[in-house]
Amino acid sequence: MAHIELGVDEEEFPGINGPLMFRPETGKPLSELAEVLLRAPHSLSAGERELIAAYVSGLNECKFCTSSHSAFAAEQLDGGADLVEHVKANLDDAPVSDKMRALLRIAGAVQDSGRKVTPELIAAAREHDATDLEIHDTVLIAAAFCMYNRYVDGLGTLAPDDPALYLGAAERIVARGYLG
Amino acid sequence: MAHIELGVDEEEFPGINGPLMFRPETGKPLSELAEVLLRAPHSLSAGERELIAAYVSGLNECKFCTSSHSAFAAEQLDGGADLVEHVKANLDDAPVSDKMRALLRIAGAVQDSGRKVTPELIAAAREHDATDLEIHDTVLIAAAFCMYNRYVDGLGTLAPDDPALYLGAAERIVARGYLG
Repeated sequence: MAHIELGVDEEEFPGINGPLMFRPETGKPLSELAEVLLRAPHSLSAGERELIAAYVSGLNECKFCTSSHSAFAAEQLDGGADLVEHVKANLDDAPVSDKMRALLRIAGAVQDSGRKVTPELIAAAREHDATDLEIHDTVLIAAAFCMYNRYVDGLGTLAPDDPALYLGAAERIVARGYLG
Repeated sequence: MAHIELGVDEEEFPGINGPLMFRPETGKPLSELAEVLLRAPHSLSAGERELIAAYVSGLNECKFCTSSHSAFAAEQLDGGADLVEHVKANLDDAPVSDKMRALLRIAGAVQDSGRKVTPELIAAAREHDATDLEIHDTVLIAAAFCMYNRYVDGLGTLAPDDPALYLGAAERIVARGYLG
């Protein structure tokens, strides 16, 4: 059970859903930020951006967010769940583009601390044609999931075990997005 | 100089200001979140909420955010800059209420990891009459500054040394807020 009385059935509204409903004044900008970062038209596909979210959530060991965004990424990437699990287990030899690998390395640095992002990590991304917008959004997606992960776990919310629940959520997110 | 071309004079628009202007689509929810969390009517004063932001930014060693929110807190708290510096240097014997000390301990746990927030930390806050909303907002302010700090430092933005700059920003934030 969550640390505070969220006013919802946590089995029905697990993870971040309860807190977003408990405090709609903060839920609104939190949901809008996710929609812009992960779903709005972009040179990185929605699947690639969800992969960054899943990767950072994995590093933060946030079960609900890792399960959710891994499912959302798998639903939208050609490589499916195998690719997502490979990236989380061993980024170095995962079958992603050189640009995505360089961006994921930046995201991994941000997860530790913003001060860990070096000119070398930025240069490596640029060598593989990452744009300023792609670098900006990678940094902000990684930073934002350091927030969402702490929000979900800091309130002690429920993270269900059943994979079917996350697959169902993935279908809803792909169909309707974070504001749906 | 920042890692990406922000399109603004960083001396004039240091820290988070450049990134907010570079990408207004994400700048809007980021600014709205800060306004709701730190300035909207609340049982915790704006100064107390800025103190949580300054404390977490200090733990994350983000120079721009720590300098900014320390100045914003000092401007709005009776104890001024002395109190803010005392809290950052030694929370245990800082002259804050027992409730604020308990909330700041929750914020410190969140800064490390959401999973570090224990039932004991929550119970201690409740013993000193912290409400569910105050606990929720403390967790989210701490989580949000784990994002803002990483955003500012992950893009390598400028953090000026001159204290007068942060005092000027404090006057503007108190007068006009984060959407002004």
